[in-house]
Amino acid sequence: MSEGSSLSRRHLLAGAGGLAVAAGASGFGMGRASADDPPSGAAAFAFHGKHQAGITTPAQDRLHFAAFDVTTDSREDLVALLREWTDAAAAMTRGKPIGAGDPTPYDAPPTDTGEALGLPPSGLTLTFGFGPTLFEKDAVDRFGLSGRRPHGLRRLPHFPADNLDPTRSDGDLCVQACADDPQVAVHAIRNLARIAFGTAAVRWAQLGFGRTSSTSTSQATPRNLFGFKDGTANLKAEQQKLVQKFVWAQPGDDPRAEWMAGGSYLVARRINMRIETWDRTSLREQEHLVGRDRQHGAPLSGGEEFTPPDFEVRGSDGPLIPLDAHVRLAHPGQNDGVQILRRGYNFTDGSDALGRLDAGLFFIAFVRDVDQHYVPMQMRLSARDGLMEYLQHTGSGLFAVPPGIRPGEYVGQRLFES
Amino acid sequence: MSEGSSLSRRHLLAGAGGLAVAAGASGFGMGRASADDPPSGAAAFAFHGKHQAGITTPAQDRLHFAAFDVTTDSREDLVALLREWTDAAAAMTRGKPIGAGDPTPYDAPPTDTGEALGLPPSGLTLTFGFGPTLFEKDAVDRFGLSGRRPHGLRRLPHFPADNLDPTRSDGDLCVQACADDPQVAVHAIRNLARIAFGTAAVRWAQLGFGRTSSTSTSQATPRNLFGFKDGTANLKAEQQKLVQKFVWAQPGDDPRAEWMAGGSYLVARRINMRIETWDRTSLREQEHLVGRDRQHGAPLSGGEEFTPPDFEVRGSDGPLIPLDAHVRLAHPGQNDGVQILRRGYNFTDGSDALGRLDAGLFFIAFVRDVDQHYVPMQMRLSARDGLMEYLQHTGSGLFAVPPGIRPGEYVGQRLFES
Repeated sequence: MSEGSSLSRRHLLAGAGGLAVAAGASGFGMGRASADDPPSGAAAFAFHGKHQAGITTPAQDRLHFAAFDVTTDSREDLVALLREWTDAAAAMTRGKPIGAGDPTPYDAPPTDTGEALGLPPSGLTLTFGFGPTLFEKDAVDRFGLSGRRPHGLRRLPHFPADNLDPTRSDGDLCVQACADDPQVAVHAIRNLARIAFGTAAVRWAQLGFGRTSSTSTSQATPRNLFGFKDGTANLKAEQQKLVQKFVWAQPGDDPRAEWMAGGSYLVARRINMRIETWDRTSLREQEHLVGRDRQHGAPLSGGEEFTPPDFEVRGSDGPLIPLDAHVRLAHPGQNDGVQILRRGYNFTDGSDALGRLDAGLFFIAFVRDVDQHYVPMQMRLSARDGLMEYLQHTGSGLFAVPPGIRPGEYVGQRLFES
Repeated sequence: MSEGSSLSRRHLLAGAGGLAVAAGASGFGMGRASADDPPSGAAAFAFHGKHQAGITTPAQDRLHFAAFDVTTDSREDLVALLREWTDAAAAMTRGKPIGAGDPTPYDAPPTDTGEALGLPPSGLTLTFGFGPTLFEKDAVDRFGLSGRRPHGLRRLPHFPADNLDPTRSDGDLCVQACADDPQVAVHAIRNLARIAFGTAAVRWAQLGFGRTSSTSTSQATPRNLFGFKDGTANLKAEQQKLVQKFVWAQPGDDPRAEWMAGGSYLVARRINMRIETWDRTSLREQEHLVGRDRQHGAPLSGGEEFTPPDFEVRGSDGPLIPLDAHVRLAHPGQNDGVQILRRGYNFTDGSDALGRLDAGLFFIAFVRDVDQHYVPMQMRLSARDGLMEYLQHTGSGLFAVPPGIRPGEYVGQRLFES
């Protein structure tokens, strides 16, 4: 790929205001849920800005998420890694190979691994986060950061029915790569992992093949692997006041973590779905568990997909939306008005030894305050949601996502230097 | 999704001549390798025809491949499964839910699992095959088919350096689902597996996220995870005489398997790439191992990507294309003129316990005669190809792919009834 030809295909969009608006050359929104809404490989989102991209960015189609263990004890090496990651991310999100301006000597390994050469940016975003163990692990303040650990940044509590695999949970660092072409997302994680060699190593990773949430009103609502539309009531980027209230950490939120202002907290949950059991459940039961109809996604209280559910209206057998329906328990009206920006992906990792699909939802949410905005709702869902019979949480992670990067800065610089 | 609205989006293409030509509403070719070549979700390939679709069909972007063990002893149940699969495949490849004409009672499980409702056909093809063990297993003629087993249909021989995982190898049946939307491919395999409940169970499955071959001259050459263009010299659908010679089983090829005329043999090999080792290899070494330059894919003997390699031209240190270069050993000129139709996909299944990418190439080829057209070349590559230092074959399968299905027939009917 010559620089010239690749740049000519690109359509770099300003996103400095935090809200990166997707618009390919053809004017299509990104994130495809119908034939009317094809992906536009040429779209690119600005890497620099007030907030990191990949949060309110309209959800791309594909995910490669990786959590890393830091393997060095040197704060200097850790900072050097974040600097290198920043440069690499800035290049890759523009569709450029790493080190493009700096040709590789023939007798050295190529700086970029090359499998995305010739591919457009494909809407790639890279979103970086810091796990609780980066600040303190086994009571050791590894990098002199423990005094700056955000109050809410600790391992999530045990929720009823959790069955977590430690090899799919936690981590010192995380990177969320989203793109409309999986080869572009995989290339990005691979090259970041390669840069980290000797400083950090991949602890676990998850690929997601289809978004399960809309994060913009421009996107159609996609379906999860239960066959239902998911995320109808999701917080959308266009709801700017609510996004300020429920997504972005604000100055004053946490006196010891002022460096987080403009950032957010990433909750990751690997939720296996008991697909085969679900598939043997009647349509009636499925709709009662979800609280919506399958065909259109309308609440069982009536109307269309976006009609607000009416939890009071009753039929002959009780409320039309049952008391343990997912839509009732997850609804803001039942959760002190809390709204969540979800950004999850369907996954399937093949089949297990019994031939059952190892598949489900890789839940990602971005919240301003995990103790107010995530934990209470998940406690309620884990304990009471009828759907839990068909779900098993097998992985978990919580990460502080620092604010956006200004040109010349590196990811998380305000944590290390302010 | 209502029938009417879904049909209006579709653009069903005739493919009865065996060569299904892709053209979305916008006239784009399918199989995306550059921004100039976006996928068209609206494209659909005919399910019925002289040959099964998914072989010479221009390679779609995504793969879900599944191998099944038949769990019944009843020939009748096996045939009933093939009938049900045929009906389901005919519906899904047109973007229709299974059992669309036959609405589900509210108190029964839905006939279709629903996660592809509202999605276009996305170029879905479903290609069915029969493994050697369907004909005979542990010296038992399970379904009265052993007299009709094609001569070449047996477990592939052991190749030097094979390290096969039995849980990723073999199988009685296989289904190759290819589509431009992974949710559509996953939906198809899931629903076929669901239909098979009690008759056959998934033995292993593989997802592929990016095609590594072009099967049509309309497609740009994609890159594999070594960062090199792959499949430049691949047999293309447009080379109709060569396709007849090297892909389709012909009448008279095998007297006891006349039912295979118009079919082909599917070779599947899961090839792990030692990504981290490769990434530490110099560009010089990489290019010498492949025999092409990385940037453009031109042979090291000079020219452009599609310039034929000149194996005689020498530099000061010997042949410009080294004796153990992949392009030399795999070239038709070095293999009695044999040409192969490859249809492989990049895969990554996350990271292993050491944090290394579990990734590589899921090789798929369709050949007329496996003993002439695949085994000798793979023996040569396994023994002598310099690239083998960076590869490990971890899965393997061989399947007889019966000819295309005529309307009213079921998959493989000529095996069971002629």
